[in-house]
Amino acid sequence: MTTPWNQRCAQRMQWMSASTIRELLKLTEKPDIISFGGGMPAPEVFPVNAFRAAADRVLSRQGGQALQYSATEGYRPLREWIVAQMARYGIESAPENVLITSGSQQALDLIGKIMINPGDLILTERPSYMGALQAWRAYQAEFVTVPVDDDGLRVELLEEALCAGPKFMYILPNFQNPGGVTLSLERRRQLIEIADHYGVPIIEDDPYGELRYEGDHLPPLVVIDAERLSGHALSDHALRVPGGAPYYAHEHTPGNGRAYMRGNVIYLSTFSKTLAPGLRLAWLVAPVEVVQRCVVAKQGMDLHTATLNQMIAYEILTGEEDFLGKHVRLIRSLYRERRDAMLAAMETYFPEAVHWTYPQGGLFLWVTLPEGLDAAELLKDALAHKVAYVPGAAFHPDGGGHNTLRLNFSFCDPQRIETGIRRLGEVFAQAIETQEEELELVPAL
Amino acid sequence: MTTPWNQRCAQRMQWMSASTIRELLKLTEKPDIISFGGGMPAPEVFPVNAFRAAADRVLSRQGGQALQYSATEGYRPLREWIVAQMARYGIESAPENVLITSGSQQALDLIGKIMINPGDLILTERPSYMGALQAWRAYQAEFVTVPVDDDGLRVELLEEALCAGPKFMYILPNFQNPGGVTLSLERRRQLIEIADHYGVPIIEDDPYGELRYEGDHLPPLVVIDAERLSGHALSDHALRVPGGAPYYAHEHTPGNGRAYMRGNVIYLSTFSKTLAPGLRLAWLVAPVEVVQRCVVAKQGMDLHTATLNQMIAYEILTGEEDFLGKHVRLIRSLYRERRDAMLAAMETYFPEAVHWTYPQGGLFLWVTLPEGLDAAELLKDALAHKVAYVPGAAFHPDGGGHNTLRLNFSFCDPQRIETGIRRLGEVFAQAIETQEEELELVPAL
Repeated sequence: MTTPWNQRCAQRMQWMSASTIRELLKLTEKPDIISFGGGMPAPEVFPVNAFRAAADRVLSRQGGQALQYSATEGYRPLREWIVAQMARYGIESAPENVLITSGSQQALDLIGKIMINPGDLILTERPSYMGALQAWRAYQAEFVTVPVDDDGLRVELLEEALCAGPKFMYILPNFQNPGGVTLSLERRRQLIEIADHYGVPIIEDDPYGELRYEGDHLPPLVVIDAERLSGHALSDHALRVPGGAPYYAHEHTPGNGRAYMRGNVIYLSTFSKTLAPGLRLAWLVAPVEVVQRCVVAKQGMDLHTATLNQMIAYEILTGEEDFLGKHVRLIRSLYRERRDAMLAAMETYFPEAVHWTYPQGGLFLWVTLPEGLDAAELLKDALAHKVAYVPGAAFHPDGGGHNTLRLNFSFCDPQRIETGIRRLGEVFAQAIETQEEELELVPAL
Repeated sequence: MTTPWNQRCAQRMQWMSASTIRELLKLTEKPDIISFGGGMPAPEVFPVNAFRAAADRVLSRQGGQALQYSATEGYRPLREWIVAQMARYGIESAPENVLITSGSQQALDLIGKIMINPGDLILTERPSYMGALQAWRAYQAEFVTVPVDDDGLRVELLEEALCAGPKFMYILPNFQNPGGVTLSLERRRQLIEIADHYGVPIIEDDPYGELRYEGDHLPPLVVIDAERLSGHALSDHALRVPGGAPYYAHEHTPGNGRAYMRGNVIYLSTFSKTLAPGLRLAWLVAPVEVVQRCVVAKQGMDLHTATLNQMIAYEILTGEEDFLGKHVRLIRSLYRERRDAMLAAMETYFPEAVHWTYPQGGLFLWVTLPEGLDAAELLKDALAHKVAYVPGAAFHPDGGGHNTLRLNFSFCDPQRIETGIRRLGEVFAQAIETQEEELELVPAL
């Protein structure tokens, strides 16, 4: 008497089906399709030689340690490096505030595990990162959303949404995935004030902060929140250094006995966009009591993040003076060129009725088609034209967004970008034309 | 108005505290303590040079791919290698049945996520692996247990425990962690019959199967279950090859169109004990519908296991004819010597009233002290004597086991093993003497 496995499925998984991200990552494997679908870094800027040298040094000098079990919190020297690096952006923390995670996706899963009870409401931007939605749906979370515009979250609509009683807010302030928009400094300050007033914590997800192609770096929410607690508006003294350079130049001395991270914000970042995603290496910065809970939860999830990967990353980051700074400048210059190529091609090839965002950094921009068009339906036409994107509905946890879509500009070179956008322009023009014909037919019926 | 983070904790995490495993892994970092506490492989048998060469080959030839995002299911060539390797032990599967996980701990977490509703009952051996208990407690599982003896799970007590209605059974048939005992062939058959009769699936966790130091390899539960379905008792034709050699010698041709894994068992194994735990690389074999659900769940947990690690492991496993076979023979010879050193030292130094199991393989043995002694209390004395172990209570999900403890014999060399066991013998002898004195005092009061 064998029971079918499907009957043994947990309730939390009943909603689950293969996600749009996943199916689209599969499409990118076909070489004849120009994919703007994934969120993949350009492999040509992976520091492969630095990885080879670092792997060799780690395995020859510390092989026994690199291949052994290690602490759940993460490799201590790497945590100290992260503390010093974040201090350059004004984030004051100690190694005890830092947890190494197996990619930022694991940090999202950890937050779900330690915070979400079934039925809890989470406030997100609309649109928001679908990987976070997927992680938290597995804990039976529900969602309330606030729309973004060109300056990020529309903070003036926040208080109404907070009345629904969300457990926390999930915000991507820099070059948001999928919208490509950046939260203005004024709105950052308002958001922190409101979060404090209502006692609702913020998960600040910042995978792209280093990838700014123009304009000034803006202080992270976690810094503005620390200012609120200390009463000093440090962010008024921001150094004006164009091109995404460090915001604070001061050096940080870890472990000086101060209690850091006592505020309302958990900050997430990652090496996926600066070093390489294939490492699965990211980090979470939070109050010590949050980190301790996350450590206990992570122990039950994967014991620890691969020791080898952490030690190789540390070796790369410290093997050469300011390796990351130099490498990130290279990435910025490549991606800026690709962003500009995509924006120029859209000006040329997209019909007038199509609108898009202007990203100051990151990997994505966001396209809005005329009302009534369905980007998921049009994806079939696009694939027939050998070009792919992610339809926007999956980024809308409470519905809508059918006429929107996300484009990635980091993965393809400028020539493929131009070809792909031209093809997309044809698909959209055809769809708009068909829609107009149908609208004209209506009165004749 | 800032709310304390502890008030935002999810209910599932209220029970959580830093676990015994974790605190003990910390002790092993002190060099003056002889630790039998962790479950760590001996770093001197890590194939460090093979790792160096493999990392260099992967990064020089396939660097762009190794550092990029990859499929959630895992690196296809590695999954095909696993299919062929498992076929040598009689496990018939296709790559679609195999999911690469970030250590077996993640496989346990995945099973919890896709199968456990709050309040669900899980049947485990008593004692059982505490990492599994920790993973499933996070899904608010409860436990019913069946004791083990020298032949593993006492199957004659199983039906009574099944009446409580567990969702699945969790069984470690080979050199069980923590008991060190092995489920006999006769009991394996009975277990599969009973599981089928009651329609209760089995999670078969087999991290140590390759590490057999004497006696014949026994067929995995998943093989016996497949025999049940096919009506052929393949396991009667087991090759009698001493020393843990492959059970089936036939070659497997993957993807020949047969439907595999249609039974009642999910099988887990890992590279942590054969290659290196610092990779965090393991796998799950299951019916396709289970793998598909796990893939969706894993996507929300860490997107995928590190690409680099999977490709390095594949390169090592295929870079040299029968690399794993040769390497595992080396590990077996080292660990057999250490097991024998521990058993001999226990004969010499442990008081008569102390009993222990005789492991045919694996990393652990299990010690039972006289009733009334508390191994957790005695750990303080042991640490004062510079020796550590894991108290047994944490392996008993439904209470008891206070007079038991787990010893690891893989990590320390024979000389340290003898010294450590001598110290432990002194601690136990002193405790037994004190207990006897107290017992003698009772009538005098």
